Amino acid sequence: MLRFVRDNAPCSRADIAASTGLNKATVSSLVADLIDRRLVRETGLTENRVGRPATMLVLDGSPYASIGLEVNVDYLTAVAVDLSGERLLSWRRAFPGATATPAQAVAAVAALTRRVVNRMTKDQRQVLGVAVAVPGLIGTDGTVRVAPNLGWHEVDLAGDLAKALRDPGFPIQVENDANLAVLAEHRFGPLGGTPNLVYLTGEVGVGAGVILDGRLRRGGQGFSGEIGHIQIDPQGPRCRCGRTGCLEAVAGIGVLVSTTDPAEVESEIDEVVRRAKAGDAATLDQLATVGRDLGRGIAIAANLLDPDAVILGGYYVPLAPWLLPAAADQARALSIAADFGGCEIVASTLGYGAAALGGAARVLDSVDSGRLPSP
Amino acid sequence: MLRFVRDNAPCSRADIAASTGLNKATVSSLVADLIDRRLVRETGLTENRVGRPATMLVLDGSPYASIGLEVNVDYLTAVAVDLSGERLLSWRRAFPGATATPAQAVAAVAALTRRVVNRMTKDQRQVLGVAVAVPGLIGTDGTVRVAPNLGWHEVDLAGDLAKALRDPGFPIQVENDANLAVLAEHRFGPLGGTPNLVYLTGEVGVGAGVILDGRLRRGGQGFSGEIGHIQIDPQGPRCRCGRTGCLEAVAGIGVLVSTTDPAEVESEIDEVVRRAKAGDAATLDQLATVGRDLGRGIAIAANLLDPDAVILGGYYVPLAPWLLPAAADQARALSIAADFGGCEIVASTLGYGAAALGGAARVLDSVDSGRLPSP
Repeated sequence: MLRFVRDNAPCSRADIAASTGLNKATVSSLVADLIDRRLVRETGLTENRVGRPATMLVLDGSPYASIGLEVNVDYLTAVAVDLSGERLLSWRRAFPGATATPAQAVAAVAALTRRVVNRMTKDQRQVLGVAVAVPGLIGTDGTVRVAPNLGWHEVDLAGDLAKALRDPGFPIQVENDANLAVLAEHRFGPLGGTPNLVYLTGEVGVGAGVILDGRLRRGGQGFSGEIGHIQIDPQGPRCRCGRTGCLEAVAGIGVLVSTTDPAEVESEIDEVVRRAKAGDAATLDQLATVGRDLGRGIAIAANLLDPDAVILGGYYVPLAPWLLPAAADQARALSIAADFGGCEIVASTLGYGAAALGGAARVLDSVDSGRLPSP
Repeated sequence: MLRFVRDNAPCSRADIAASTGLNKATVSSLVADLIDRRLVRETGLTENRVGRPATMLVLDGSPYASIGLEVNVDYLTAVAVDLSGERLLSWRRAFPGATATPAQAVAAVAALTRRVVNRMTKDQRQVLGVAVAVPGLIGTDGTVRVAPNLGWHEVDLAGDLAKALRDPGFPIQVENDANLAVLAEHRFGPLGGTPNLVYLTGEVGVGAGVILDGRLRRGGQGFSGEIGHIQIDPQGPRCRCGRTGCLEAVAGIGVLVSTTDPAEVESEIDEVVRRAKAGDAATLDQLATVGRDLGRGIAIAANLLDPDAVILGGYYVPLAPWLLPAAADQARALSIAADFGGCEIVASTLGYGAAALGGAARVLDSVDSGRLPSP
């Protein structure tokens, strides 16, 4: 019902009854409950139609905040949104994720979370939940099984965070960064609501978030979307994972930069963009090669999943003017469906905070699915 | 409710109410409707428990038949099952699918369907529906967009069949063969009910059927599962599709046989099995190579989708003793998740009729989802 009001507000109780098939008494009682919890409120508006004028309902949610965070190799990000998705806060902090211990990371994330929560509390908002994006394999129980670029193995981040925050009274979830980024696209992006989406993180690591038939598909153990380690070329270069010819090794951002210091990647990518804009032939060649290899990976995902769109995130976004044409040509050539199955390849518009924003989206999804805050 | 009775029979109306959350009056009225339609019947059994003894319900469905068919390059298959999945009939006919025109195929499928329907009618069964498996790209509207091995383009098989059968009064669906085969595995196979399954057809063409979170995932246009044309090796051999290094070109059954006549494939595969059993070194080498390349394809699907199991069908089944170990070793080596994400690789036990059986499963799914026969 909350989802219906979000999508159709302002709407009347009769509209809800008509659409959900619930009878009017049930709708009235459920609406009263949502109003009690301040998730929905009545507006002064009435519908201009024949018959008794109806009181219209809209999302309230001003008393609530949903928080998303991201831990990555060189930064922490925090985003807070209200129930309608309005951005309340968006912070980014440098953080040495590649060298910090898990305990140091927990302390840093807990400190950042505390500051966000304090801000929300000061603004008289109740925190609905926190979801943290991590670049790694996350088990279905939320444990970080392995996050290679952070050097983590078997880290119970959600549990450790709850302890560090002394059982804060709101749920804490942990999820793969690509999975959360695709949720952000699905809820807040220009392709929002598109049922079949693949999102590719464009970092030194490459991961995919997969939405099919409107839902995140995590696979049996929660390990889906490991597109960075599909083999693009058995004769290709060695990957950091020890395997050969992985997508990450031929089309990850690491191919385009010389530094191994994550904190330096952003400025090196800025430099690549500058050279490409200046028409430097070697740079343009390299971008076209990386684009083609990226296209090979996209073609594999497209042949297997037939998505409506593939969205490129992270550092792929500033490089999209050069990567995208080569990637699209290659992907179309290797796709068995005519006209690439109608799939489009686009650059994300959600910025570097996509995964954190997806964390906030994930919390809102939980509320929409019935995990309501207490009245 | 039908699904609940199938999974939990014998069960009482109170069991249904408790599990579905519907109130007892609603359950009674719905059960009365299902009894009217002869989908459910009461048994003499009563539950041995404190309180008033309850009348137990079981699936009836003896008055119904669900029919699945498969059109392939060298045969037509027909399967009929009752509502509980009991096999009523299983026929296989030689058919020159690779050379027949679509019109000839429609006539042959219609003739076979008519014979199956007549048999069911004679047995006093009402036909719930027919679903036809085709090895090709099927649009979401059921049109066969392209079936390369049949030489079909834009064939409205469902419409043409309905015309040939003179509007038979039951629905006719058309679906990709791998999609139907994975539905058969999910409903009738030893891994039935496993939420995340990938099925690979082992024919001259290789296709995948993908079930994630318990449902077939068809993609945006219905073209998912085209694993046969993912590029395994950019330096690999030319594929019949014109591309290079496709999975089908390195690990399709065509690699193991010399004939181009589909009708000869089965006997040639028998010969390969015979040589492998005799320990012929060249044959064993070739099977190991094909197995490894198949493992590369499986690794890609596993990294991207994290299924609980990958099931090998078609001609991969008789060859499984030699293909499977090499495929499993390679897939495990190329999988980023530890211990291959808990995924198992197994040979199908449903035989060559898997896709047709999946057609029957698809019709039963429609009934379970509420497309009930008239009382």
